[in-house]
Amino acid sequence: MLAEIITIGDEILIGQIVDTNSAWMAKQLNLIGVSVKQITSVSDDEQHIIEALEAAEKRADIILITGGLGPTKDDITKKTLAKYFNMGFRRDEGALDMVRQIFKKFNRPLLDINLQQADVPDGCQVIVNKNGTAPCMWFEQRGKIFVSMPGVPYEMMYLMDDEVLPKITSRFQLPSIVHKTILTANIGESFLAKEIEHIEDCLPAHIKLAYLPKLGQVRLRLSAKGNDEAKLKAEVNDFAQQIIDQVGKYVVIDEDIPLEKAIINIMKEKGLTLSTAESCTGGYIAHLITQHPGCSSVYWGGAVAYAYELKESVLGVKESTLTTFGAVSEQTVTEMAEGALKNFGTDYSIAVSGIAGPDGGTEDKPVGTVWIAVSSKKKTVAKVFNFSNKRIQNIERSAASALMMLLNILKEA
Amino acid sequence: MLAEIITIGDEILIGQIVDTNSAWMAKQLNLIGVSVKQITSVSDDEQHIIEALEAAEKRADIILITGGLGPTKDDITKKTLAKYFNMGFRRDEGALDMVRQIFKKFNRPLLDINLQQADVPDGCQVIVNKNGTAPCMWFEQRGKIFVSMPGVPYEMMYLMDDEVLPKITSRFQLPSIVHKTILTANIGESFLAKEIEHIEDCLPAHIKLAYLPKLGQVRLRLSAKGNDEAKLKAEVNDFAQQIIDQVGKYVVIDEDIPLEKAIINIMKEKGLTLSTAESCTGGYIAHLITQHPGCSSVYWGGAVAYAYELKESVLGVKESTLTTFGAVSEQTVTEMAEGALKNFGTDYSIAVSGIAGPDGGTEDKPVGTVWIAVSSKKKTVAKVFNFSNKRIQNIERSAASALMMLLNILKEA
Repeated sequence: MLAEIITIGDEILIGQIVDTNSAWMAKQLNLIGVSVKQITSVSDDEQHIIEALEAAEKRADIILITGGLGPTKDDITKKTLAKYFNMGFRRDEGALDMVRQIFKKFNRPLLDINLQQADVPDGCQVIVNKNGTAPCMWFEQRGKIFVSMPGVPYEMMYLMDDEVLPKITSRFQLPSIVHKTILTANIGESFLAKEIEHIEDCLPAHIKLAYLPKLGQVRLRLSAKGNDEAKLKAEVNDFAQQIIDQVGKYVVIDEDIPLEKAIINIMKEKGLTLSTAESCTGGYIAHLITQHPGCSSVYWGGAVAYAYELKESVLGVKESTLTTFGAVSEQTVTEMAEGALKNFGTDYSIAVSGIAGPDGGTEDKPVGTVWIAVSSKKKTVAKVFNFSNKRIQNIERSAASALMMLLNILKEA
Repeated sequence: MLAEIITIGDEILIGQIVDTNSAWMAKQLNLIGVSVKQITSVSDDEQHIIEALEAAEKRADIILITGGLGPTKDDITKKTLAKYFNMGFRRDEGALDMVRQIFKKFNRPLLDINLQQADVPDGCQVIVNKNGTAPCMWFEQRGKIFVSMPGVPYEMMYLMDDEVLPKITSRFQLPSIVHKTILTANIGESFLAKEIEHIEDCLPAHIKLAYLPKLGQVRLRLSAKGNDEAKLKAEVNDFAQQIIDQVGKYVVIDEDIPLEKAIINIMKEKGLTLSTAESCTGGYIAHLITQHPGCSSVYWGGAVAYAYELKESVLGVKESTLTTFGAVSEQTVTEMAEGALKNFGTDYSIAVSGIAGPDGGTEDKPVGTVWIAVSSKKKTVAKVFNFSNKRIQNIERSAASALMMLLNILKEA
């Protein structure tokens, strides 16, 4: 069963927003055994939308469409779908009721264009959207399924979870797709490939291996497709075990979770607690950790100490350290980590202080210079890194490196 | 001049990574006057890549391709491009030199598959990639340009900024594309549309207006295309001014910047300082603010107070408040905000405490219950919100709502 995703909206094509919907949808579809063949982003242009629909209809069985369902004139998806399927319009009572409820809840005046949100192509089935005024529309035409959903992420997510995915599952006999991911660190992609070449060469045609490098980590992903889920799982697990046996010392975890989640799991198991003291990463490490449910038994919190004043008052960094060595120094980052450990009462702490840029660099300490320290009751380890001249990258790479340092110290312990 | 972007990689189609490259590339292309017609994500599959290339070649003048250039077996973009253009391979000396330099720098053993990174289709021009082993390849065929770049974001970004964009600009007479964005808040999309309907109706064909709603804000984007940049700018500014005159009280800022950046600008201008006290947003507000260069003159830092202990020790929340009213309460969030103001010595502070979920909800305080407070020397305002049952959404919506509350209080002052 093949699906395609079409996202509609000029804002994607001019780069004003990043399309996060497609990745989320693709992940959910894969979990129920539907492969995504292609993701296509097109503009709010009738002819272009029709071309994309035609091309997708040729390749896929299910076409999921997001975006272009707002009440304003630039949104033309509904009109275009009616034209594509040669349908007229009808006003849907369920959708109308939802529009009225939402406007009542937010106490906003109900305009004519809001009522028009309940007008749908007359050959579609309406799935009521509980979180917005644009209904979800389900078309079955020429043996294919087309589902049109709003582009607002949380509206689309509710509709997919509660309505669209269950409907697809109940409608088709789906093959199984099994993925297994192994997160590795401290080893380059090509060196890793060489180490496991003999395993890769033995993979049968229905199992694929992919290498996904990111910020000093490489994810290995085994993907298998077939009808017998139990057999696929056994096969994939067997190959995964061969890989782990071969390159075990580089393996962080054999789950498809990010590094910080792997660390939370390891620390939770050992009953350890963590705090953070962030300067140039400005809360990004804390955010990475606190995205994950259940982090609170490990992560107690921390400080975002941007100003000198907070480094001193909250983390106990000595004024003389800051004035003698500067905020971006081994001495400061060490005091930040040790201050967090002491003041926040945790077993481990991470501290980061660097020059994220674009300003603030000097000859000695150019933009991208970042000191990172990890502290435990036993010791404090500090290390300097030289990243790039791009602010966001420096923040991301600092966070990844800090987490890697913590992981390596946890592994030693 | 039309461009298309093709991203290659199974990891996108199974939803393992979000494609952030395309939005960035589209933005840069628009800035130099190249419109992006379509963004297409396809798998690491030869036939599928060729179909995508054929379709893009029909529609666009420039085709930018990312991904599938790694040294491992799952990466087949280079081989596929050679097949598509019917070319053989040659080893490129410049690319080979860069591979050698990079392996020397990281002190890693150089393998045969790494040397093969310097093999390129013999009809392409190589642009050396200073940040990675996969060279950028520039093809001019049948009157069209094809550029293949690695999918690693920072490698692609350097190549685009330093090489590809300047090459496109020097090669073509490009039309101008002018965008102007107005950020509005506290008004719904359809109500806004009705307010400015008469302005929208007067827009000439070469100027488009789009509505981009997100987390309680609506961005209005005017886009004009033509040859006379100065004239386009004047026209767009004139329509923007008409809109601002009409709905001025909802306008946050007339720039394409996020809400937190608008707040930094307003506070910087007034010489005001800000701190944060985050529980359920876990550093996300701090991260949003510190993404932006120059935030340090406004933002001094804050606490991520996940555990009760940190709420008490760092923010000065009374133990009795926590035990009597709970961490998610008007009383606690008020003490958090006032504690931040006092302990961190800033003019304004934001505090957030809520139940992000999926666990931790009760009948009285279900998942999605979030208390937010904004404090200044004059007063503290606290408000409760009821968001969703999805953790990431609750974090994002809490942050957006907290920033909105701060903005509204800044506007009053």
